[in-house]
Amino acid sequence: MGTQSDWLKISLGHWRNQALSTHTKTRRVEVALGERSYNIEIGQQLLTDSSLLHALIPANQVMVVTNETIAPLYLDALVKSLGTKQVATCVLPDGEQAKRLDSMLPVFDELLANGFDRDCYLVALGGGVIGDLAGFVAATYQRGVAFVQIPTTLLAMVDSSVGGKTGVNHPCGKNMIGAFHQPKAVIADLDLLSSLPDREFRAGMAEVIKYALLGDAAFLAWLEAHLPEVFARDTEALAYIVERSCQNKAAIVQADEKEAGQRALLNLGHSFGHAIEGATGYGPWLHGEAIAAGMCMALRLSARLSWITAEECARGIALIQRAGLPIEPPSQITPETFLDFMQRDKKNRGGQLRLVLLKGLGNAVVSADYPESALLETLQEYSDG
Amino acid sequence: MGTQSDWLKISLGHWRNQALSTHTKTRRVEVALGERSYNIEIGQQLLTDSSLLHALIPANQVMVVTNETIAPLYLDALVKSLGTKQVATCVLPDGEQAKRLDSMLPVFDELLANGFDRDCYLVALGGGVIGDLAGFVAATYQRGVAFVQIPTTLLAMVDSSVGGKTGVNHPCGKNMIGAFHQPKAVIADLDLLSSLPDREFRAGMAEVIKYALLGDAAFLAWLEAHLPEVFARDTEALAYIVERSCQNKAAIVQADEKEAGQRALLNLGHSFGHAIEGATGYGPWLHGEAIAAGMCMALRLSARLSWITAEECARGIALIQRAGLPIEPPSQITPETFLDFMQRDKKNRGGQLRLVLLKGLGNAVVSADYPESALLETLQEYSDG
Repeated sequence: MGTQSDWLKISLGHWRNQALSTHTKTRRVEVALGERSYNIEIGQQLLTDSSLLHALIPANQVMVVTNETIAPLYLDALVKSLGTKQVATCVLPDGEQAKRLDSMLPVFDELLANGFDRDCYLVALGGGVIGDLAGFVAATYQRGVAFVQIPTTLLAMVDSSVGGKTGVNHPCGKNMIGAFHQPKAVIADLDLLSSLPDREFRAGMAEVIKYALLGDAAFLAWLEAHLPEVFARDTEALAYIVERSCQNKAAIVQADEKEAGQRALLNLGHSFGHAIEGATGYGPWLHGEAIAAGMCMALRLSARLSWITAEECARGIALIQRAGLPIEPPSQITPETFLDFMQRDKKNRGGQLRLVLLKGLGNAVVSADYPESALLETLQEYSDG
Repeated sequence: MGTQSDWLKISLGHWRNQALSTHTKTRRVEVALGERSYNIEIGQQLLTDSSLLHALIPANQVMVVTNETIAPLYLDALVKSLGTKQVATCVLPDGEQAKRLDSMLPVFDELLANGFDRDCYLVALGGGVIGDLAGFVAATYQRGVAFVQIPTTLLAMVDSSVGGKTGVNHPCGKNMIGAFHQPKAVIADLDLLSSLPDREFRAGMAEVIKYALLGDAAFLAWLEAHLPEVFARDTEALAYIVERSCQNKAAIVQADEKEAGQRALLNLGHSFGHAIEGATGYGPWLHGEAIAAGMCMALRLSARLSWITAEECARGIALIQRAGLPIEPPSQITPETFLDFMQRDKKNRGGQLRLVLLKGLGNAVVSADYPESALLETLQEYSDG
């Protein structure tokens, strides 16, 4: 284990050397899943790198799915980079509300209207909503076609574009309808983050902090030391957090692609967070904001169980707060409402609530082995009622 | 290779011996797909065989999906056989029109309203529409749960319930949205065929004849000799055609689960047939009827190419006609309409029409290696225009 400054030197030094050699040099994280393996390419000016795009999107028929916010910024550049391919586009409304089963219909319509066959590629150009939805279309069009993720948000770069979870929401729960369908490649062009609003950037940082809390204590220390560079959107710092987060995610996904066990660790803060999103009607709280508050709740419950110390709990919450993220849920959400939403969580088995909790910073566990009273008391702490 | 009468003796003799020993003894066809392997159980009184059902449906939470025609006949018996499990049911409208993306919503609603988790089982009690739709719900609910097929039609027993193809139609094409998702078991209770209308039974026979034509010349001879027993719904003859068809299908699916090549052979008659269904608006023609006419068109095109003799062509068409099935498409469908629908076929690559044709009875090939003029002439033969 190195010190905090060692981590900075090693990681930023490595990146800097590469960046000096050529401006568009990419860093690569491999997601090793046998015949479903793929690479995450991290770098700058990737969207206009026609040779990279042609190598990663070998099909002639390409359908780009994006949203109304992203389209005016990046769609033309991407289509131009795809050159003489048969390119069709589908521009959906922005926002979590668009992540519905019926939002898939215009994409299917467009695919069929253009006569796209099983050899076509879908490209998801957008954040988590577009990636999840376009990925699910790819999983189900003609029973499965290839797709490539080009994430435009920090959250999508470090989390949702990696790992093959695709799907849409149901009024009764997030991501309740979907499929495991791995992309053929993820292209993380850091330049696209320049257009990302601060609030969205902070929301993405919630997932970055999640990796540190759940399994990477050294990264936690790095983040504590270097948050200012990150929020200044220093390119090298961005490259490092994207790469490090993807490495963490890839390691877990490789060990448990279909979430039979360990992969559920990635849901730290999500049982609580999904309940916040659901109870507030999906939209007022960004996913990352809800997960930030949810992680604080998981920290507090872990401390109540004495699985972490009060100091560790405070340290985790402090980092989340320094990142400008909420550290508690809306006080109007009652414990009953929380439990109602949490009971629909996909991790549950046989009616028992399974939660991701901490047994130390950087050491998460999936557990149903806690007294229900501790959960209730934690929920009551946050509630008006 | 045995003679026709050998086949009858061996197959029916085998079955009769089993049937004598116990009335509910089942025959079993294994679909060997590694960790996705499962058995097709063929027999009588299986729907009321509580111990068999409990063995094959080990979950506590069970959602039975069926339709308005089947529910009054068999739903109560099945629910009773499932005993003390938490059983929910969803009854959909009957018919191909129900095989739409939005027909899945009530099933998702019901699953979530009942708090069903990832360990639940879906049971498809019905024909091909229910099996395809419930299977697709199972493929996508919480990114995939288990399901069991209990086919109630001959077509579903011999074809659609086996092999893991699930999905729904799009206005522009059949089965355009779906997933590969293998069932955990198929329970083919021959007693359920007693309620099947003659027209539906004949439509199922189209798929039975398909197996014979595409790869089982001995079975073709058996069918020619024993069609009367089959249409008298003699239990032993039914058991034999279901078993033999499932063996044929299993062999092909095992060799090519995701239809990278050989599996497309199972689409003999389907490129033409899907066009007939599409051009007539899905409904007036049963799937099996359209496939019957489609197989005759494939036979005629194969003969035109001199890949089979005129006698072989006539022999194939004669069997289809003896089974009371249509041997030509509606003459109002123009060659242009056929081509328009056929161009959306999932087998196509790079805009080229790939068809399943015959190079001998019992020897199908997937090919785009034929003069387009031969296809056009064949289509023109059938057309008014």
